[in-house]
Amino acid sequence: MAQPIDDFYAVIPAGGIGSRLWPISRAESPKFLHDLTGAGESLLQMTWDRLLPLAPRERIAVVTGRAHGVKVEESLPDVDPANVFIEIDQRDSAAAIGLAAAVIEKRHPGAIIGSFAADHVIKRQRVFEFTVRQAVAAAREGFIATIGIQPSEPAVGFGYIKTGEELDIDDAPLAALVERFVEKPDLDTARVYFADRSYLWNAGMFISRADVLLGEIAANQPELHAGLVEIAEAWDTDARQEVAERVWPTLTKIAIDYAVAEPAADKGKLAVVPGQFDWDDVGDFASLWTLLSGGVRDDVTVVGAHDNVLSDEATGLVVANTDRVVAVIGVEDVIVVDTPDALLVTTPEHAQRVKSAVTALQQRGRSSVL
Amino acid sequence: MAQPIDDFYAVIPAGGIGSRLWPISRAESPKFLHDLTGAGESLLQMTWDRLLPLAPRERIAVVTGRAHGVKVEESLPDVDPANVFIEIDQRDSAAAIGLAAAVIEKRHPGAIIGSFAADHVIKRQRVFEFTVRQAVAAAREGFIATIGIQPSEPAVGFGYIKTGEELDIDDAPLAALVERFVEKPDLDTARVYFADRSYLWNAGMFISRADVLLGEIAANQPELHAGLVEIAEAWDTDARQEVAERVWPTLTKIAIDYAVAEPAADKGKLAVVPGQFDWDDVGDFASLWTLLSGGVRDDVTVVGAHDNVLSDEATGLVVANTDRVVAVIGVEDVIVVDTPDALLVTTPEHAQRVKSAVTALQQRGRSSVL
Repeated sequence: MAQPIDDFYAVIPAGGIGSRLWPISRAESPKFLHDLTGAGESLLQMTWDRLLPLAPRERIAVVTGRAHGVKVEESLPDVDPANVFIEIDQRDSAAAIGLAAAVIEKRHPGAIIGSFAADHVIKRQRVFEFTVRQAVAAAREGFIATIGIQPSEPAVGFGYIKTGEELDIDDAPLAALVERFVEKPDLDTARVYFADRSYLWNAGMFISRADVLLGEIAANQPELHAGLVEIAEAWDTDARQEVAERVWPTLTKIAIDYAVAEPAADKGKLAVVPGQFDWDDVGDFASLWTLLSGGVRDDVTVVGAHDNVLSDEATGLVVANTDRVVAVIGVEDVIVVDTPDALLVTTPEHAQRVKSAVTALQQRGRSSVL
Repeated sequence: MAQPIDDFYAVIPAGGIGSRLWPISRAESPKFLHDLTGAGESLLQMTWDRLLPLAPRERIAVVTGRAHGVKVEESLPDVDPANVFIEIDQRDSAAAIGLAAAVIEKRHPGAIIGSFAADHVIKRQRVFEFTVRQAVAAAREGFIATIGIQPSEPAVGFGYIKTGEELDIDDAPLAALVERFVEKPDLDTARVYFADRSYLWNAGMFISRADVLLGEIAANQPELHAGLVEIAEAWDTDARQEVAERVWPTLTKIAIDYAVAEPAADKGKLAVVPGQFDWDDVGDFASLWTLLSGGVRDDVTVVGAHDNVLSDEATGLVVANTDRVVAVIGVEDVIVVDTPDALLVTTPEHAQRVKSAVTALQQRGRSSVL
């Protein structure tokens, strides 16, 4: 078995609710706490397991909201409670990852951190590890490294990374400079990117020395940096609560892409390692169905209580999270998500619209099911 | 207000489960006990209300299974318990209506009985009453009279009645002889029938003198007749239970169409009165949707908990029989039936197949939800 990486901390931002996965994903029990794939583990637990060969348990941290701290610790019995960083409120990813970087840098100067979303699905573990190890090698050279996913289709739902000049880094043979980031394209543009192998999906994974990351935040968002440093100074002292409560809500809300990655790319400080593993952000029920069915739409895929589902001349995805019988008869490409207090019926083509239903339910005052 | 009809008894066979309306309709709580249309009353109660202007409460009878006697009495607080005839087991319609005829004839010699299913929906009450009164007039002349529904479309789901020679009966200006009964046609044949106004839908309503009906059973099914007479002799005595338990299970299972109507038609003893009221047998969820939407398929029709249903770019029927939120997003022509222990998702085109799901669930041993 491969050894964990020296000085490497894995940081798992466990923040977003994933409201396109309502009614499974809820404010009180977001996507990452669910066994969405029927694997027997939550997405968070799968993320933990995936990182454990790279960082020992005492060097895996989770950044999560106040409402979820207890559930995260219950879900990850091996996590060190000192490594569960609670956000006072939602401040976007630069603050969340920046907090982890600042506290870890103080505890372990010179540490390398890598951030990996709590709610993605990755297959081909060995390739994933191989890719992260290269990104760490690039980080040791002072780069901020990201992992770009080799596209498997001309997707319009992701931003892309344009790969630039190859780097010459020992232990990171595939690393290259990022030429630029591009926003989610239209389909024609996505087809061009897909044909041109130098465009990779931006999966939001960033690996760098903590001090390098903080330096980039300092350069681009000095107020955010000052606040993070103030909080980190107090974090492992009795003053933590007071300082965090006072300073955190003043921090700038900005994604790490804008606060760190794009400016670093402009300065030639951003490296990318292409990842040839299978990656899925499970953004909605359509992508969950594709993930579980391998894209073959000729049957009903069941997640949950298989024995309760009866299908006849039907295709689609049934998520059965109750004791009820679910009969799906003569319906093509239907998505049925059955939970104790809410039922969703939609199609793969409309799976993105589920978010709008959540908004409509909020307006109707039905927030108990959100 | 019009007067009830002298000597007229309305008989409501409340027998079938209506398994194409599962999971609303169940063995323990069949279709006729449900407020399927959202009218605030069960179909049985609506049937009772419809007949009350024609027969006073003491002359409305219900024939039902052992399992449903109590529910029928609860559902119809005005019913005379002596007029709730309990079938020992399911013996088809000739035995059910024949039992009512035999007991009523004994109680009230010369009575005219009319049988009307417990689970149909009829609109245009005045036209219905006008039609029944004509059928009763034909019955007084010694005919067995049926009411044929003027088709509103070339339906393939019903049998047809071919109207023959006009009769010349006072108070029954529209009555004619039945030339013959025809089985459910294919679509081409149905179109021919629809264009030819002399074909009417067979809605299974029969009106005749009780003794005439029994005489027809005696002629065609002498053993069935003998059994019914034996049970009727004992019905209002202490021997009822003993005789019914012994004789009923030996009675021939046959539909009244074959035991009475077709043979009577062959002998020129069957009259038909065309009914120009709106009639629906609510045979499945597709016909329920058509009934409730008026056939306009541009929205989601909700039965039940309207406030719990959220639809967005969807069309179809949602029967919401729980407290749960039901979100239907981007699905066309979908039927969603939500009950506490079973959920059905199907389409109008497959609504007939629901019966097969019930069979499949039986085979799986899930009879608790059937």
